[in-house]
Amino acid sequence: MRWLAEVHVRLRPGIADPEGQTIAGGLRSLGFDSVGEVRAGKLLRLSFEAADREAAEGAVSSMCRQLLANPVMETADWELRADEEPPDEEEA
Amino acid sequence: MRWLAEVHVRLRPGIADPEGQTIAGGLRSLGFDSVGEVRAGKLLRLSFEAADREAAEGAVSSMCRQLLANPVMETADWELRADEEPPDEEEA
Repeated sequence: MRWLAEVHVRLRPGIADPEGQTIAGGLRSLGFDSVGEVRAGKLLRLSFEAADREAAEGAVSSMCRQLLANPVMETADWELRADEEPPDEEEA
Repeated sequence: MRWLAEVHVRLRPGIADPEGQTIAGGLRSLGFDSVGEVRAGKLLRLSFEAADREAAEGAVSSMCRQLLANPVMETADWELRADEEPPDEEEA
């Protein structure tokens, strides 16, 4: 069974975020004066096979720990749903 | 009134995504053989002032068009909520 996960990777509070600061500065210089802190993170969408929801949750959790997020600096959470579309549709 | 927006910036379908391909390759080499396409995007969290929800929606839409997303290659959507916490709490 195919699953689609949307993983949100965010910097932990207190970790410096130069990308977010640059975006905040850019927004303010465009006239959005009230913009406060901006935090930049990653949004990853991935599909994979797993037997059931429990196995799929375990797989995403393991992917986050092993590759997608740096647990020292980042946190990860995700939304998981069964993928009804056939995979690799756009490969041609 | 203070608002908190979480903006999701995604590459449009068909736009090449080297970061996503690299992540997919990394996951497969870690043993997650069934991983299909991975798409990488940005997750931006920002706070700002606006009089009401309508003004806040307009501001975020304008920020996305002017800076946060490249409309040729990316799409943006967002969740907006009133921010109850005082701003700049962590500046000290």
